[in-house]
Amino acid sequence: MAGSAFGTVFRITTWGESHGKALGVVIDGCPAGLELTEADIQAFLDRRKPGQSKYTTARAEGDEVQIMSGIFEGRTTGTPISLIVYNKDQHSRDYSEIASYYRPGHADYTFDAKYGFRDYRGGGRSSGRETIGRVAAGAIASKILNELGISIICYTKAIGGISISPERFDLSVINDNPLYMPDTKAAEEAGAYLDRVRSEGDSAGGVVECIIKGMPAGIGETVFDKLDAELGKALMGIGAVKAVEIGDGTAVSSSKGSENNDAFTISDGTGSEEPVILKKTNHSGGILGGMSDGSDIILRAHFKPTPSVSLTQTTVNKDGEEITVNIKGRHDPVIVPRAVVVVESMAAVTVLDLLMRNMNSKMDNLKKIYV
Amino acid sequence: MAGSAFGTVFRITTWGESHGKALGVVIDGCPAGLELTEADIQAFLDRRKPGQSKYTTARAEGDEVQIMSGIFEGRTTGTPISLIVYNKDQHSRDYSEIASYYRPGHADYTFDAKYGFRDYRGGGRSSGRETIGRVAAGAIASKILNELGISIICYTKAIGGISISPERFDLSVINDNPLYMPDTKAAEEAGAYLDRVRSEGDSAGGVVECIIKGMPAGIGETVFDKLDAELGKALMGIGAVKAVEIGDGTAVSSSKGSENNDAFTISDGTGSEEPVILKKTNHSGGILGGMSDGSDIILRAHFKPTPSVSLTQTTVNKDGEEITVNIKGRHDPVIVPRAVVVVESMAAVTVLDLLMRNMNSKMDNLKKIYV
Amino acid sequence: MAGSAFGTVFRITTWGESHGKALGVVIDGCPAGLELTEADIQAFLDRRKPGQSKYTTARAEGDEVQIMSGIFEGRTTGTPISLIVYNKDQHSRDYSEIASYYRPGHADYTFDAKYGFRDYRGGGRSSGRETIGRVAAGAIASKILNELGISIICYTKAIGGISISPERFDLSVINDNPLYMPDTKAAEEAGAYLDRVRSEGDSAGGVVECIIKGMPAGIGETVFDKLDAELGKALMGIGAVKAVEIGDGTAVSSSKGSENNDAFTISDGTGSEEPVILKKTNHSGGILGGMSDGSDIILRAHFKPTPSVSLTQTTVNKDGEEITVNIKGRHDPVIVPRAVVVVESMAAVTVLDLLMRNMNSKMDNLKKIYV
Amino acid sequence: MAGSAFGTVFRITTWGESHGKALGVVIDGCPAGLELTEADIQAFLDRRKPGQSKYTTARAEGDEVQIMSGIFEGRTTGTPISLIVYNKDQHSRDYSEIASYYRPGHADYTFDAKYGFRDYRGGGRSSGRETIGRVAAGAIASKILNELGISIICYTKAIGGISISPERFDLSVINDNPLYMPDTKAAEEAGAYLDRVRSEGDSAGGVVECIIKGMPAGIGETVFDKLDAELGKALMGIGAVKAVEIGDGTAVSSSKGSENNDAFTISDGTGSEEPVILKKTNHSGGILGGMSDGSDIILRAHFKPTPSVSLTQTTVNKDGEEITVNIKGRHDPVIVPRAVVVVESMAAVTVLDLLMRNMNSKMDNLKKIYV
Repeated sequence: MAGSAFGTVFRITTWGESHGKALGVVIDGCPAGLELTEADIQAFLDRRKPGQSKYTTARAEGDEVQIMSGIFEGRTTGTPISLIVYNKDQHSRDYSEIASYYRPGHADYTFDAKYGFRDYRGGGRSSGRETIGRVAAGAIASKILNELGISIICYTKAIGGISISPERFDLSVINDNPLYMPDTKAAEEAGAYLDRVRSEGDSAGGVVECIIKGMPAGIGETVFDKLDAELGKALMGIGAVKAVEIGDGTAVSSSKGSENNDAFTISDGTGSEEPVILKKTNHSGGILGGMSDGSDIILRAHFKPTPSVSLTQTTVNKDGEEITVNIKGRHDPVIVPRAVVVVESMAAVTVLDLLMRNMNSKMDNLKKIYV
Repeated sequence: MAGSAFGTVFRITTWGESHGKALGVVIDGCPAGLELTEADIQAFLDRRKPGQSKYTTARAEGDEVQIMSGIFEGRTTGTPISLIVYNKDQHSRDYSEIASYYRPGHADYTFDAKYGFRDYRGGGRSSGRETIGRVAAGAIASKILNELGISIICYTKAIGGISISPERFDLSVINDNPLYMPDTKAAEEAGAYLDRVRSEGDSAGGVVECIIKGMPAGIGETVFDKLDAELGKALMGIGAVKAVEIGDGTAVSSSKGSENNDAFTISDGTGSEEPVILKKTNHSGGILGGMSDGSDIILRAHFKPTPSVSLTQTTVNKDGEEITVNIKGRHDPVIVPRAVVVVESMAAVTVLDLLMRNMNSKMDNLKKIYV
Repeated sequence: MAGSAFGTVFRITTWGESHGKALGVVIDGCPAGLELTEADIQAFLDRRKPGQSKYTTARAEGDEVQIMSGIFEGRTTGTPISLIVYNKDQHSRDYSEIASYYRPGHADYTFDAKYGFRDYRGGGRSSGRETIGRVAAGAIASKILNELGISIICYTKAIGGISISPERFDLSVINDNPLYMPDTKAAEEAGAYLDRVRSEGDSAGGVVECIIKGMPAGIGETVFDKLDAELGKALMGIGAVKAVEIGDGTAVSSSKGSENNDAFTISDGTGSEEPVILKKTNHSGGILGGMSDGSDIILRAHFKPTPSVSLTQTTVNKDGEEITVNIKGRHDPVIVPRAVVVVESMAAVTVLDLLMRNMNSKMDNLKKIYV
Repeated sequence: MAGSAFGTVFRITTWGESHGKALGVVIDGCPAGLELTEADIQAFLDRRKPGQSKYTTARAEGDEVQIMSGIFEGRTTGTPISLIVYNKDQHSRDYSEIASYYRPGHADYTFDAKYGFRDYRGGGRSSGRETIGRVAAGAIASKILNELGISIICYTKAIGGISISPERFDLSVINDNPLYMPDTKAAEEAGAYLDRVRSEGDSAGGVVECIIKGMPAGIGETVFDKLDAELGKALMGIGAVKAVEIGDGTAVSSSKGSENNDAFTISDGTGSEEPVILKKTNHSGGILGGMSDGSDIILRAHFKPTPSVSLTQTTVNKDGEEITVNIKGRHDPVIVPRAVVVVESMAAVTVLDLLMRNMNSKMDNLKKIYV
């Protein structure tokens, strides 16, 4: 009920605070027989760890993952996989002042309202470091998806209003720029924008886009736990996300049915054994009636600017006095580039969970396994 | 796992198809001692029932609710409340042709992909009539929220790109126009647009906005089951919704931290016993770190145009042939006006569930009840 | 959280009170493609309905089930199956006196303690009629199990200390006596005992035994949701059950390891394609480490005597006065015979749910469905 | 779904294997504001750790717990509490032979059947060491219960058929004998029995009894998630438990209603402000209709003898050959004494979870917190 778990079959429970001993995740429900090493997980964690560029916090963390359980002789055993990352560079002294007031845009006030007090060191549980557990679990989910022929591509679509161009869209350059944009020119412009924003003591937001390829049709539940509903929850549950779109997203509200409907067609069967049903367009973003329709699934998350700005702000302290503050510390001027792998991980966990939930959708499936 | 239930403490399970005998909902976890009659629920159902204006389907349904259990001597007993609405005007003959092909924009193909076959009569389970159960449950959730001092306002913000104007915004006129817009002029323009769209055999989308007033601060869980995450799931799980926004929504991605942060301040205490913490602005839409921050909660759902258009469309039949179709039947040219109460209901259920989940957040609460 | 649902994948939610309009169940997660008619369900309900013999209450109820949703053209669609049984012979006037005091052995006092008041008509929600929903769901679960080669046998093992004899054990006579005992002589003795008890205004308890045949090995989760743990919950959750045993049950506590361990052996392969692992004995009752071991699963539930006796009893009224009462009404002198099908139904739902949960236990299974 | 989590509001997830790096538990849903130190938890773990007497395995483990998260300045924060115990004395070489065959009475065969292979070192996940996580969580649950005025007493009632005597029953001597029996003479006799059994290379079973004092009336859900149902699951889910009894347990099946019903009465009010409802007897074991009735809750778990006996046994190896084996290693001749704290812990977690679930049972409770 406390909400630190996600997923129903492939179920992850994260724990840990920014300045506690460690952070981690327990994955309950990972199928047995998957080859898995710490390197598989580390590759994902390295994409979110701090200090990769001038646009990310200077906090020095290796974020090395240890597998504590659930793997035997290189394969998952079907029992819970416990993963731990120890905190190293905690600098608790930096945060003592913050204890006395509520930072605008942060969860300080709401944590106090809910629990009566809070671990104020580095944001405690509301720190971005909580996503370590999500990303570690996402690495495992992604590996399973790959074995089922499903892959996820995720990148920065826009920063501070500077968006990638459809004409220059090039997935091969994502890792060549520190902003993970599939458009070198947009990355340069966004970089210049970030330099300016940072020099002003301010911060920027942005958009992450995610494409899931290879999903079989019919995945997702039909009423509340729709594929888009679960993805919506997964992405909206990432700190700083304030909007989520599927396919054409907000644009659908001003579209007409004749424009928005995607016509079905039949593949010519070239290269495959039998013709399959396809769509001529993909306004739906790969989801119809809450289930995958066989096309690419397309989603976007809109991130607000990092609330930690060094500009002077007005707020309230715990004595009920209005004060002005200048927040110091090691903060990212934009979290979007590091959030790319978080979005990808949450998408992976969500999609895998729904694939696993779908195993029981029809009698034929039960008979394939048991009869 | 099949996903026809929503909520964890206040848990609703809907059932029923467009052309089955009846539709209904079971509410498990409603607290005992709430005064409740069928009239309380009917008032909500009447807001979504068909035939209210020329913009809604002509299907003749009274949608009369019956309480089957869980109420004794006018009050909830704490046991499951079962609510039923019998279908009357089913017209199954209208749908026989549809069985043979996949309608663009509908869930026909995905249902077949998931389950191997489908109830094709009126969309079966994917029909908008499924929301009867949601709205009936929402009526009860809303009544409980009202007793706790919380109210929800919901209206049409835009149709087909025609949006209400902040200057003319007037909640008192919502029920004076068939589109439930708080702006008479916008409603007239949108009506004219709908007339045109409908005459072309086409359909329109739109935006529903929802404001939750009176929420105490600190409601929502801190990691995955954030208030915004759960609201995101609730709204994205309504058929035809393709985007969900909280507060400034998509606009945050091009905003700066200094603009987006809401400064905290202290009320002057006029009219209340002690000063309370407030925010000077509400870009956050009333949610910080996944918890309510004491301000109004603001959310928006973007609906795609009704996929049932009478214009000629290309699709595929069950024999794997590409065909053209003209879909007949009684369809809404826009579902947004009838969706207003659905959004309101899902918001009510979500918020109440999180309030109930929060009862255990601190030892002080346990002691208030048990010591 | 209110606990009116059972199961995680094959999930049933029951609703209804003894003297409300109706009782029912919603089954969410039934796989699509199962042939199902009302007759399949009615056969189970007829085994629990009142008035079958002099040992059951004279309340006249046909307990006719109606399928409200989830079936199309004779097969399950994968969407929720809603089943309803309307109450007919409610006799509410019989229960007006009971409102004023707490019947010993009943849930009157505890309902008031929990909810502040109660529906006192016929026990309200705590009535044995609540099991209608369980039995209706059990009929469906049993049909699915049968298609997977699994069958459940359930019978009365003892009444009032009079137990069936291993020497006379004969499954073919279960339906030939009103007590559902697989031993004609024991049934006669128990019948005579019941006649005596009833004439004294008293009541009797008994034991129901259940054997599940054909379970594949490896079903059940390994830690908390063990097969025996879930069966324990399922059976202990039936009203009046005060003890549950698996295999040798309570006898194991005075046994030695050398006696209690079941030796593994190999079948000679006669009649099957390849040798399979068997056990020479079955002290374990078919469960090892919380998972099915391929042997018959054996469990027993111990039922307390019906608390409604017509003998004079001491109790307390709502004014806090100690009083003596003589409870009138139509009560079963023993509920065990009618409970047989309830035990069978709960066992069926539990076992099916764990079979469905197990679909994801290994990568091989996922690949069988998706690759 | 994989079943390594227990509880719905106070939710614990255990992880770890006998010979992995560590074992642990994550507790999600612990209320904020509880004072908690590692010493509180260690006191419970010390009661289950090996090497306390000649009746327990000689494996040398300090079982020192570390709190990794969820505590700040000595109090719980409301966020997940992660607890870890590192394994030290793993002796993996002892178990290499066991990999090749299935030990009778153990979970070797069923693990292979479920997952395709297993971690065979020391039983892997099915080892008794898995209960470390349960006991650590139980320590926290017990501390919370104590703050609410609820306490749990747990002890060995019988070993190998040698039971405590009601006449000699003395709670003060429980910790004076290595078997945790509240009867010195029975403990001596049971000790002599164990010496004999052990010298024969055999093992013994026994019974653990648990009394929960101070429970308010009305706790437990009314249909499936009854207090006794949840306790039944909790206890049956402990390895080696084959039967669970509540109150008079198996004896009820041969009792009459007039004997089994507990008469209600009114306290004289001496020492308390107002008269309260009591029962004159407690055959029900403190539970009526699945809810606590205000009396002591009484339950018993029957444990089978340790399956690891050094006597020669027949079994099957992975090549499908029948073989005889003599199992070596460090095993407890009886697990009952160490299981006492496991039963107590599971009872504590179960009862606390239901208390927390009950917070929402009536409108009055919601108003106490929110209005």
